[in-house]
Amino acid sequence: MNTQFKRIGLISKPDAADIKGTVQALCDLLQQAGIILYLDPETAQHVNASAEHIIQIESLAERCDLIMSIGGDGTLLSSARALVNTNVPLIGINLGRLGFLVDISPEEMNAKIQEVLEGHYHEEERIILMTQIIRNNDVIHEQSAFNEVALHRLKSPGLIDIETYVDDAFVNSQRSDGLIIATPTGSTAYALSCGGPLIHPSMNAIALVPINPHTLSNRPIVVDGNSHIGVKFSQRDKHRAQLTCDNVILPDMLEGDFISIKRHPNKIRLLHPIDHDFFNTLRVKLDWSHAPQS
Amino acid sequence: MNTQFKRIGLISKPDAADIKGTVQALCDLLQQAGIILYLDPETAQHVNASAEHIIQIESLAERCDLIMSIGGDGTLLSSARALVNTNVPLIGINLGRLGFLVDISPEEMNAKIQEVLEGHYHEEERIILMTQIIRNNDVIHEQSAFNEVALHRLKSPGLIDIETYVDDAFVNSQRSDGLIIATPTGSTAYALSCGGPLIHPSMNAIALVPINPHTLSNRPIVVDGNSHIGVKFSQRDKHRAQLTCDNVILPDMLEGDFISIKRHPNKIRLLHPIDHDFFNTLRVKLDWSHAPQS
Amino acid sequence: MNTQFKRIGLISKPDAADIKGTVQALCDLLQQAGIILYLDPETAQHVNASAEHIIQIESLAERCDLIMSIGGDGTLLSSARALVNTNVPLIGINLGRLGFLVDISPEEMNAKIQEVLEGHYHEEERIILMTQIIRNNDVIHEQSAFNEVALHRLKSPGLIDIETYVDDAFVNSQRSDGLIIATPTGSTAYALSCGGPLIHPSMNAIALVPINPHTLSNRPIVVDGNSHIGVKFSQRDKHRAQLTCDNVILPDMLEGDFISIKRHPNKIRLLHPIDHDFFNTLRVKLDWSHAPQS
Amino acid sequence: MNTQFKRIGLISKPDAADIKGTVQALCDLLQQAGIILYLDPETAQHVNASAEHIIQIESLAERCDLIMSIGGDGTLLSSARALVNTNVPLIGINLGRLGFLVDISPEEMNAKIQEVLEGHYHEEERIILMTQIIRNNDVIHEQSAFNEVALHRLKSPGLIDIETYVDDAFVNSQRSDGLIIATPTGSTAYALSCGGPLIHPSMNAIALVPINPHTLSNRPIVVDGNSHIGVKFSQRDKHRAQLTCDNVILPDMLEGDFISIKRHPNKIRLLHPIDHDFFNTLRVKLDWSHAPQS
Repeated sequence: MNTQFKRIGLISKPDAADIKGTVQALCDLLQQAGIILYLDPETAQHVNASAEHIIQIESLAERCDLIMSIGGDGTLLSSARALVNTNVPLIGINLGRLGFLVDISPEEMNAKIQEVLEGHYHEEERIILMTQIIRNNDVIHEQSAFNEVALHRLKSPGLIDIETYVDDAFVNSQRSDGLIIATPTGSTAYALSCGGPLIHPSMNAIALVPINPHTLSNRPIVVDGNSHIGVKFSQRDKHRAQLTCDNVILPDMLEGDFISIKRHPNKIRLLHPIDHDFFNTLRVKLDWSHAPQS
Repeated sequence: MNTQFKRIGLISKPDAADIKGTVQALCDLLQQAGIILYLDPETAQHVNASAEHIIQIESLAERCDLIMSIGGDGTLLSSARALVNTNVPLIGINLGRLGFLVDISPEEMNAKIQEVLEGHYHEEERIILMTQIIRNNDVIHEQSAFNEVALHRLKSPGLIDIETYVDDAFVNSQRSDGLIIATPTGSTAYALSCGGPLIHPSMNAIALVPINPHTLSNRPIVVDGNSHIGVKFSQRDKHRAQLTCDNVILPDMLEGDFISIKRHPNKIRLLHPIDHDFFNTLRVKLDWSHAPQS
Repeated sequence: MNTQFKRIGLISKPDAADIKGTVQALCDLLQQAGIILYLDPETAQHVNASAEHIIQIESLAERCDLIMSIGGDGTLLSSARALVNTNVPLIGINLGRLGFLVDISPEEMNAKIQEVLEGHYHEEERIILMTQIIRNNDVIHEQSAFNEVALHRLKSPGLIDIETYVDDAFVNSQRSDGLIIATPTGSTAYALSCGGPLIHPSMNAIALVPINPHTLSNRPIVVDGNSHIGVKFSQRDKHRAQLTCDNVILPDMLEGDFISIKRHPNKIRLLHPIDHDFFNTLRVKLDWSHAPQS
Repeated sequence: MNTQFKRIGLISKPDAADIKGTVQALCDLLQQAGIILYLDPETAQHVNASAEHIIQIESLAERCDLIMSIGGDGTLLSSARALVNTNVPLIGINLGRLGFLVDISPEEMNAKIQEVLEGHYHEEERIILMTQIIRNNDVIHEQSAFNEVALHRLKSPGLIDIETYVDDAFVNSQRSDGLIIATPTGSTAYALSCGGPLIHPSMNAIALVPINPHTLSNRPIVVDGNSHIGVKFSQRDKHRAQLTCDNVILPDMLEGDFISIKRHPNKIRLLHPIDHDFFNTLRVKLDWSHAPQS
């Protein structure tokens, strides 16, 4: 088959019960199309693969023209973070339930993948964030986040005091359960549960969403995606807080640490079937399609 | 002085910097009125008191006709929890900043306390909750809460799944950051930051307030104060959650534990100056009194 | 058949397209059980009925032991308002779609009605509000409301200024699109869309829900159901506002008018099938039963 | 004085009681600096001005290098709409109360205006919307909006059904009180009261904010500022709705009308004093600067 995607890498959800069939079917489909496959070690457990085709996730991008992520949105988030320094596109296959990011279902996989290989697909570019924890002027930790960076108070009663800066301008000081710094991709995830707005994924924007702020007039703020976000915190008694990037837990933070968040200069290239419709996904996932009740 | 409050107990905020003056002034005032004073050990550090007048908080109620709590709302919450099994009334003196519960300020203390001693006061009865953690049919922990019982996921990404019951009827299953079970007193506290309604303190009502629920149509529910609230939880991977009663942290919970919450048969008797006005406190504390911006 | 409900009145949704079959089936069912039927004129159009069994809605209660309302929640709201001065119970039959109030569907009507006639039912008592518009000390209009009283600005840009009182105590002054005064029954209706809490229908409570208030710290307030609610308004330029009670539009109001709202001394007796479950209705109507999305 | 703003136009708030002094002081200040002044007829009532210097608002831009708007945010909104087809910058002077748009107060006017004339100012470019009502393929009305376009149900109970499109893609169908289509400038105005996010004014973004939607999972959506927004509506019984652009009421709409909203190709050039700080304005106007309550 004549396709621009001659070498494809597969990353699948770890420890997933019912994934073997889908992975096997996908491998068969791609091999019949003459594609050279590379698998991360986790995925390789599900199929027969020779050792030279089994590669760590971080290295997949060097060999491949496209990465397919099989699982839920969480698996694709991990894949995107692993690819942040590359320019390889990514496409998501779900395990039977539509995700915001993984929109090819096993039943329609044959037809949809065929179309993608033939060059009929929709390509989106989405921003991804880079977070640095800075202690005494040293970067002590660095992590990417495709959905959101979330700062939480550590367990305890007693809220956390957070100071936020945008491009070095002081935004506000809040007492709350925490603060979310979300990409448009993350606007349909945790930030949405905390009252943040939906943001079209094509936008170059960052949402600052307070988590249960004590000051009731505190509201989510959307700023330009090129903004440099800075966050400090203090918490009486405990002086500690927790930072997560998507589902990755960073080391406990200390009072005085500075969190620096910028978008990565690269964007994530996310492919969709040609009939992809962001608003339709919203309608399905958020139950908007239900007939209004009288 | 002829007063119904012949013996008064004082409980003051622990480790408070500027409290000595207020405590001393209050003691002078009460002693000049011929009141017999009892002090908890913490409060006794601020003044001269003979040993037989220094009594543990839990025992103050046996000797006293009235308890005065000096500090912020948090101090009064502690006092109320300590008094849950007694019928002794409680009044709150703040340290210069109006609280929802402590509404006599140091400047007006002389006049207001005088009025209260003379029998001119406003008495409210407010419900208070009793929480039991039940593991394998045993009550392994019990704690009272005047503001709220709050169940939180422990640190981690990954929301917690919570099942709620009211009088054994299944209410709902939610994935969220947690659940607050609040009294009307607590409706102006943490529950308010999480989207709960204000509830008049005179009401016999309990509010169930989800914390950042994943299902966007989830909403706070107000039920009768005599309802028996039951809560179960599960959390993937972690299987642990944290329960707090006001600012008291309970031991970590395990999946399978059952949380049982009922109002205590007693009510807390809270006294206020005769000109107390709940709605005025709301207006001041929530900044409603600000002129509307055009 | 031996039943306490020997004479039943039927009130059906006006101008409903597909109601004839349900009304006919219900009449057949009841007549076979030996019940004497009375119909309001609207309902009588759907079946053969002798003139002496056709009675205006307002008079049905005098002749009947039970009123059946056939249609949606709106039809039952109308029936309840018409019955406010009587003590006759009410039960609701829907036209195929579960309502909050009308919970017997046509398919299960035979079995459920049979059970009710045999005395197996669940009875609830729910409060209902009485609203008076007072102009220059005269009551110029009076109207009952089972869901809510809603004060809106009339069309125009420019918000309305509203002052609210509870038992003559000033609550607050707000600039907003309006104010809802809702019963627990109405807490699942318009008030819910405006951010009000769900309130268990058994409660004697009234919710004051601001509509899009300019002051962001303004919040819904729940007060005792025996409270006397007073509302005044002013609006620059226009000096008019609109008041509705459920779906009944009251005459345009003028600045200076006073709105007085109290619960009616009677309660509405609402019957349900024996397996009625308020929380299940919530779960179905609010889509809580959907599996959480990962 | 050597300044780039040699000819300045003044537009002041109509029918404002206490504006005369500020207008007079401003005229004196500018004339002493050698500026040629043009006044709209309304403003000319407050000062002595020769006829050739009194010009309709729409024509001011042709003669002037800068327009000064004296009044509140509403006055500046009007000025901006009048200038939509020009490229003349705009600056706002308030009457003693900080606005989101008018940030020079009378007391500091002398110093701030002096700085602006000398070229020390901060210039922002903000998007502005153009709305067309299309009936039977004809544009029957056209209006600009600097804050927001708002579609409301006309008076009545009964919500309105609204269909929204972004770049011809169907977004959703909602039953609600209405829909706001807001600029970043409007994100601090009516949209904020309806739950919309704050959006930094520099952004090229449009917020779609549902007004009290019946479907509780409906949420504000932020889309690219170059999007073409389309809105249709239907309302049972009434078939009418009201459209406003800022504070301008458009003719009543009929069911079947199509509302087309795009940003104007021009941006509004808004000048501020050099020390302007958007986040500080937020903190002041939204009361964020208040110390957290314990």
